[in-house]
Amino acid sequence: MLSLPEIQDLVSKKIDAFNRKNGKSGIYGPITYILALGGKRLRPALSIMSAQLFSDELEDAIHPALAVEVFHNFTLMHDDIMDNAPLRRGKATVHEKWNSNTAILSGDAMMIQAYELLSKTNTEKFPEIFRVFNQTALEVCEGQQQDMDFEKRTDVTLEEYLEMIRLKTSVLLAGAMKIGAILGGASKADADRMYRFGENIGLAFQLLDDYLDVFGDEAKVGKLKGGDIIADKKTYLQILALENAEGANKEVIQYWLGKKPKDPTEKVRAVTSIFVELQIDKLVLEKVKSFHQMAMSDLAALEISEERKTSLRELAEQMLGREH
Amino acid sequence: MLSLPEIQDLVSKKIDAFNRKNGKSGIYGPITYILALGGKRLRPALSIMSAQLFSDELEDAIHPALAVEVFHNFTLMHDDIMDNAPLRRGKATVHEKWNSNTAILSGDAMMIQAYELLSKTNTEKFPEIFRVFNQTALEVCEGQQQDMDFEKRTDVTLEEYLEMIRLKTSVLLAGAMKIGAILGGASKADADRMYRFGENIGLAFQLLDDYLDVFGDEAKVGKLKGGDIIADKKTYLQILALENAEGANKEVIQYWLGKKPKDPTEKVRAVTSIFVELQIDKLVLEKVKSFHQMAMSDLAALEISEERKTSLRELAEQMLGREH
Repeated sequence: MLSLPEIQDLVSKKIDAFNRKNGKSGIYGPITYILALGGKRLRPALSIMSAQLFSDELEDAIHPALAVEVFHNFTLMHDDIMDNAPLRRGKATVHEKWNSNTAILSGDAMMIQAYELLSKTNTEKFPEIFRVFNQTALEVCEGQQQDMDFEKRTDVTLEEYLEMIRLKTSVLLAGAMKIGAILGGASKADADRMYRFGENIGLAFQLLDDYLDVFGDEAKVGKLKGGDIIADKKTYLQILALENAEGANKEVIQYWLGKKPKDPTEKVRAVTSIFVELQIDKLVLEKVKSFHQMAMSDLAALEISEERKTSLRELAEQMLGREH
Repeated sequence: MLSLPEIQDLVSKKIDAFNRKNGKSGIYGPITYILALGGKRLRPALSIMSAQLFSDELEDAIHPALAVEVFHNFTLMHDDIMDNAPLRRGKATVHEKWNSNTAILSGDAMMIQAYELLSKTNTEKFPEIFRVFNQTALEVCEGQQQDMDFEKRTDVTLEEYLEMIRLKTSVLLAGAMKIGAILGGASKADADRMYRFGENIGLAFQLLDDYLDVFGDEAKVGKLKGGDIIADKKTYLQILALENAEGANKEVIQYWLGKKPKDPTEKVRAVTSIFVELQIDKLVLEKVKSFHQMAMSDLAALEISEERKTSLRELAEQMLGREH
């Protein structure tokens, strides 16, 4: 069996080959650019790892895993236009380096290429993974729409927020894992377990991301602490705090909402201290743990040997456990 | 056998049903809006008509034909953003009625839905039509990129222009017809003939469109005559005139290029009169005729009864013949 680093290495080599084939001219330049920015290749790695739970024959799983990575990067290219983001992985975004029209068009071409990659697999199972991929892809778009809608609202509930991040982030992890499982020969029940595993790990991962933005180690997180507070971003922490705060605390949070001071230190300090007083940090970590446990219970139920489950359990812990 | 109006009616009903299922909320609102704007449904009609050349069993061909129409409208939604177009079929474009972000995202969802529709067919032939669809879709993107590149250039050749409109316009007609033919059970040779037929009819159609913009009957064309001249649009006529003009004529054309007079009558009159002097009108119509003849020769070579070919021959003549 391949280890996670071996799988990530395999994915990287395949992406490099894809980039060499695409080249740098016309609509293909921005595709090669964004794919060469790197990243952990988590989605394709999880997809291949999911196939490996059920089979040692990974050949069929590789191209669909790449399809997921190419699709993911297509969503980044288009989301960056919509979010007006200047940077992606520390480099200029495609619409900044080229322009919005190029980012729209190359993104479109990238989605078509994702479908091309998806089709390079065992034809017998293709209709099934095609359905999973399509549903996932549509849900990712729905999640992005909700995220944009939420920016204009002040009454987003925790439940709505969780549904939005489920769509925007988790279903692609879930779909990637289900596709891998199907191609590895999993039973329908096991393929569904893998989907739920991905969904719950994705939710845990996103909530942890919200947590780390405020309470993480700045050096490890690699970005300015409290960035979400400064930007008034709707996160699990902000929504929970607004729901739980009363009296003066509520007034202080609302006072800072929408304020853009030149030096944001005081804003971050004041809001963080209310989060702590309301024990938001602990409540979020409990929620992370609960999603993690749900994922683990689906992993435990898989109808495969315990030995095979180890790598995935370790990966989940690596994604979630060591950071806090 | 179904007549063209019967096929168009069938397509309209299926699109209506698709719209009802999608509804109007979230990302689906703009999809329903653009598909309800109408149009002649030429691409899906040609696709179904192509299937009908080879088989009376049309069921398998319907969803892929709709896929082509949904994909076509997706390209319109994104192209309208890139071209900054305020109107589409006389109504506000999606990015005008909503905003650019919504048009990007709903367009993305629309492409996914096109793939969903494509998959609702005879699974045995799915890999083959999937390949045709993917290649076609990528080429349409390449054509749009070339079109945008050409705007910044002053040295576009006739050959480059033809290649651009082939990619941007013709390959989707060609792909739609090839997909229909494959699903109708055509031999490989006949499927390729149908592709070339669509390609050549598409080229003829686009060149005729260039011609009619300058020399058409204003009432029939339904838009301001000379619009392409006013906008300095690179068309077959403009490029050919710039290649053929000498001396004073060349100077006059170049004098008007880039000029945006409040009253464009004089600009249109001056450029048109040089087109006539250089016999550009006749040369374009000859080129249209030559593409039409190439299409007819592929139609003639099809290994099916002459009777079956009638509807397609009539449609091609309707598209091209009656207008000039």
